[in-house]
Amino acid sequence: MTFEPTGRLGIVAGGGTLPRRLVNVCRAAGIEHFVLALEGATDPATVEDAPHAWCRMGALATGFRLLHDHGVTDLVLAGGVRRPSLLELRPDWRAAKFLARVGYRALGDDGLLSAFIKELEQEGFRVIGADQLLEAAMPEGPLGSLAPDEDAAKDIAHGLRIAQALGALDIGQAVVVQQGLVLGVEAIEGTDALLRRCAELRRDGPGGVLVKIEKPGQERRVDLPTIGRRTVTLAAEAALRGIAAQAGATLLLDREEVVRAADAAGLFVVGIRVA
Amino acid sequence: MTFEPTGRLGIVAGGGTLPRRLVNVCRAAGIEHFVLALEGATDPATVEDAPHAWCRMGALATGFRLLHDHGVTDLVLAGGVRRPSLLELRPDWRAAKFLARVGYRALGDDGLLSAFIKELEQEGFRVIGADQLLEAAMPEGPLGSLAPDEDAAKDIAHGLRIAQALGALDIGQAVVVQQGLVLGVEAIEGTDALLRRCAELRRDGPGGVLVKIEKPGQERRVDLPTIGRRTVTLAAEAALRGIAAQAGATLLLDREEVVRAADAAGLFVVGIRVA
Repeated sequence: MTFEPTGRLGIVAGGGTLPRRLVNVCRAAGIEHFVLALEGATDPATVEDAPHAWCRMGALATGFRLLHDHGVTDLVLAGGVRRPSLLELRPDWRAAKFLARVGYRALGDDGLLSAFIKELEQEGFRVIGADQLLEAAMPEGPLGSLAPDEDAAKDIAHGLRIAQALGALDIGQAVVVQQGLVLGVEAIEGTDALLRRCAELRRDGPGGVLVKIEKPGQERRVDLPTIGRRTVTLAAEAALRGIAAQAGATLLLDREEVVRAADAAGLFVVGIRVA
Repeated sequence: MTFEPTGRLGIVAGGGTLPRRLVNVCRAAGIEHFVLALEGATDPATVEDAPHAWCRMGALATGFRLLHDHGVTDLVLAGGVRRPSLLELRPDWRAAKFLARVGYRALGDDGLLSAFIKELEQEGFRVIGADQLLEAAMPEGPLGSLAPDEDAAKDIAHGLRIAQALGALDIGQAVVVQQGLVLGVEAIEGTDALLRRCAELRRDGPGGVLVKIEKPGQERRVDLPTIGRRTVTLAAEAALRGIAAQAGATLLLDREEVVRAADAAGLFVVGIRVA
């Protein structure tokens, strides 16, 4: 763990299991923490037995007050949040001020998150990445017993070129390529939905590969590409040959289970270096 | 119609209703024609009562022989074809020679189609576009009684930037944007599947727009962006506000029905100029 707390750690919790992992890390390491749970996003299991409060996403003034009142100095943003429309967000005065300044609709996901992190820093918080709390960086090279063959390596190279272009447009992080065909590209639906869709689109012959990388210039403290057991399960159901994820920039959750599941399904999982 | 036949017109028929429309145009205009129907792609209704033969996609030598034997001099390629993997394609010697030369897996859809058209021309055929037989080019400006408001115009402009980038990568022709959010981008699944998916991904508030353009430098004689009744129906089911398609470069099928359906559903359909 590279994180040295300066005061209480605030965990702004989106969906999925990552926020709870951070709570567990804090408990094990004796780090004082407080979870800000987001209505409609956070799994209630995340905050069970943990010091926490619930807050609406659009209620930025309330959120800031809750964090300050609980002595939070450092912040980690973890877990996915379905980006709402302005109407769904119902911004309070503080959120409206922020959004008017940055221009909500002009920004892609990454642009908006970067702007939001700057806002948090101006409010006095130090923002850290979940990877500073978890020992979970994707290593370079094959993880399990399988490695991509020459054919799969070509699909990985093709997918990488496309993922970099998509990332530069702040559209998505993932792409599925089979024998040179782009079966699908990720936008707002996320990698799980992309993989489910590609199960229907696959061609006969050697299966495709999922390539997942961070967006170029991505704010590394939020929304890192993540690979976990479910990624392997869905990739196997889509009859893929393997998964290639950016080494160093991908959160690899439950490494041992990922390796076991990939080996059992006959998939490779490989960390690739991105220039 | 801008087409002057030099001999018999061959219609290489993919899926959908476009090939049958061309058969009907030929009949009405007294153009001698012969349909090469592709197994697994052509709707049998396309070739009913029309001079035709069936052929496997990978059997290029057979296809060429059939066309020559029937006195075909001009060719039109019409209707979608699901791009197969090499294994599914089972190329004969002629197809294998072509594919080895162009590098099947290195090419996107448009690259492959352009190379295939060159091959047809080298075989002695003149290849024309379906738009030379149909009076169906998308005009500039709104088609029905509705036009995009300022808000929708912003989504169209954003979608256009993204569609141009996707097209430059030879990935797809279409994108759906709602209030600045990229709900989905089209790859191999096609526009219909993109629209169905976006029905699940939509946010509250003003609906999104579908933007559909040709790929930059696209071979205009095949795979033109197409808008028809079904596009309007699916866009309405995805609660979109409207459809923007490239003026001059989009095939607009059943214009009157498109306008009627769009007006009834409260959607705009607008032809946009692409620089």
